[in-house]
Amino acid sequence: MKRHSHKIMYYETDKMGITHHSNYIRFMEEARVDFLEQIGWPYEKLEEIGCFSPVIAVSCQYKTPSTFGEIIYVEVFVEDFSGARLKIGYKMTNAAGKTVCEAESEHCFTNRDGRPIRLRNSFPEFAKVLEGLSTKE
Amino acid sequence: MKRHSHKIMYYETDKMGITHHSNYIRFMEEARVDFLEQIGWPYEKLEEIGCFSPVIAVSCQYKTPSTFGEIIYVEVFVEDFSGARLKIGYKMTNAAGKTVCEAESEHCFTNRDGRPIRLRNSFPEFAKVLEGLSTKE
Amino acid sequence: MKRHSHKIMYYETDKMGITHHSNYIRFMEEARVDFLEQIGWPYEKLEEIGCFSPVIAVSCQYKTPSTFGEIIYVEVFVEDFSGARLKIGYKMTNAAGKTVCEAESEHCFTNRDGRPIRLRNSFPEFAKVLEGLSTKE
Amino acid sequence: MKRHSHKIMYYETDKMGITHHSNYIRFMEEARVDFLEQIGWPYEKLEEIGCFSPVIAVSCQYKTPSTFGEIIYVEVFVEDFSGARLKIGYKMTNAAGKTVCEAESEHCFTNRDGRPIRLRNSFPEFAKVLEGLSTKE
Repeated sequence: MKRHSHKIMYYETDKMGITHHSNYIRFMEEARVDFLEQIGWPYEKLEEIGCFSPVIAVSCQYKTPSTFGEIIYVEVFVEDFSGARLKIGYKMTNAAGKTVCEAESEHCFTNRDGRPIRLRNSFPEFAKVLEGLSTKE
Repeated sequence: MKRHSHKIMYYETDKMGITHHSNYIRFMEEARVDFLEQIGWPYEKLEEIGCFSPVIAVSCQYKTPSTFGEIIYVEVFVEDFSGARLKIGYKMTNAAGKTVCEAESEHCFTNRDGRPIRLRNSFPEFAKVLEGLSTKE
Repeated sequence: MKRHSHKIMYYETDKMGITHHSNYIRFMEEARVDFLEQIGWPYEKLEEIGCFSPVIAVSCQYKTPSTFGEIIYVEVFVEDFSGARLKIGYKMTNAAGKTVCEAESEHCFTNRDGRPIRLRNSFPEFAKVLEGLSTKE
Repeated sequence: MKRHSHKIMYYETDKMGITHHSNYIRFMEEARVDFLEQIGWPYEKLEEIGCFSPVIAVSCQYKTPSTFGEIIYVEVFVEDFSGARLKIGYKMTNAAGKTVCEAESEHCFTNRDGRPIRLRNSFPEFAKVLEGLSTKE
C-alpha cells in the first residue's frame, strides 16, 4: 500500500503559522479516498453502486505541527471491521519521519436512502476485502 | 436592509496573520443568503421550488486586511438583473468604517436538472422583487 | 452561559447534502472562542498577553446530520483542568433539540515561543476561572 | 512549464453535488505556489528573504462544473508585470479538455512589515524572471 501524501497549502495554515488542526480531519478523508482507490473500491464507484459510508466518529491526537510547503505522509489501516462498522486508523508523519498526528475514524454503511446496511449482505465482495485487510487480531 | 455581519474565526486566518483571501468569497455567499432571506426568498425555499442559481463569476478587490476576532459588515445590492442573469455587488467594511473589500458575483438560474431558465417566465414573482431592487439605471 | 449558535452555510455542505463532518471541528473552535469571551478571557487578549493554547487532541461523535440553513446550538463546558492541560466538552443540538454531535478537545498552554507553561504559575487569574468552571468532581 | 493538477476532494463539494466555487480561488493559490517553485522562486523562500506578495484582487469565470474524484489541470501564466504589480492568469481544464474556469489574480509586493516594495529594486533577479515570463506585448 502506497502512503498518501499531502503538501500543506497556504490556505491550510492559520495565524499561529501552522496547519490549522481541522485540516487533518480533511487529510484523513483524502487518505481514505486514496486507500479505497488502491484496494480497488474507489469511493466514486461505491456511491454509484449505492454504498455510502458516513463518518460517525473521528479523533485525532496532534503530536508535531506542520506548516506551509511541508509534505505530510499518511498511512491508512483497517483497525477493525464488523459487518456493520469500520474503524480506520491513520498515522501522519513529516519528511523527517516525526509523527505529526495519529487519528481514527469510524464509519457505518448506508444505502442511497440513508438506511443502514450490513456490508456482508449487501456488498459481500467489498466486505471480504476489508476483512482481509483488518489488522485486528 | 440589514447589513450582514461576520466575525472572523481563527480557522479563517492564514500564516500571514490575516483572513485568507478565499474566505471573502464565502462571506459573499453568506451575505447573499442573508439578503435573500431578508427579501422573503430564502435560498432553501428557492431550492425547494426548483429554482437554483449557480455562480458563474466572482471578483473581489481587497482593500484592507482583517483578522481573527474582527467583525466585518457586508452590504449587498442588486447591481443588475436581466431575466436570465443576476449581478450582485458587495461592500465589506470593518468596525472602523474602512472598506475591507468590494466584490461582485454573477448568477444564472436553472431548474432541478441544471437547465437554464428565464426567471421572469418560471418564477415571475421572484423576478419582480429582484427588478424592484436593481440599482441599475 | 449563553449557548453558541452557528447557522450552516452552503459552503459547509458536501455532495451528500449534509454538513461536512470536518466543519464541526471548526464549530468547536467557534464555540470555544465565544465561551472564552463570555468568561472574560477572549482569545485575542490571551494571545496579546502571550498565552497560547494549541489543540493537542479532538474527538467528535456524530449523531444526527445537519444541513444548509439549519441553526446548530453549541454548549461548551470545562470537563477537566489540571495546571497544564484543559479538556473542553461540546454538545451540539439542532432546533428540534436532537443531539447533532458530542465532542471534546484537549489543550496545552504555551508562551509566545511555543514553550509549555503551567497556567497556574503564569496566568493564575485565568487558571482560577477555569478551575471554578470545571465540571469534574 | 508543467501544469498543476488538483484532484477534487469530497470536502470540496457542496450540496449541489459539485465543487464549491470558492475552492477554485484556493486552487489558484495552489497552482501559483507550484508555478513559483517551477521557476525557481518557491514562496517559502520568498517569505524567508522578506518578500511577501499579498493578493489584491481575484476574479474567476466558471464555465463547466467539476466534482469529487475529477482531476483539474491548471495552467498559470504571467499576464502582466510592472515593477510594483503582478497579474497572473489561470486556465483550468478537466480530463476531457473542457475549460472549467478562467481566472486572474493581482498581487503587490511588501516587505516583512507590510510596506510596499518595488520588486525591481528590492529583488531584481526575481523581477527579471517575472519580466521574462510576461505574456504581455
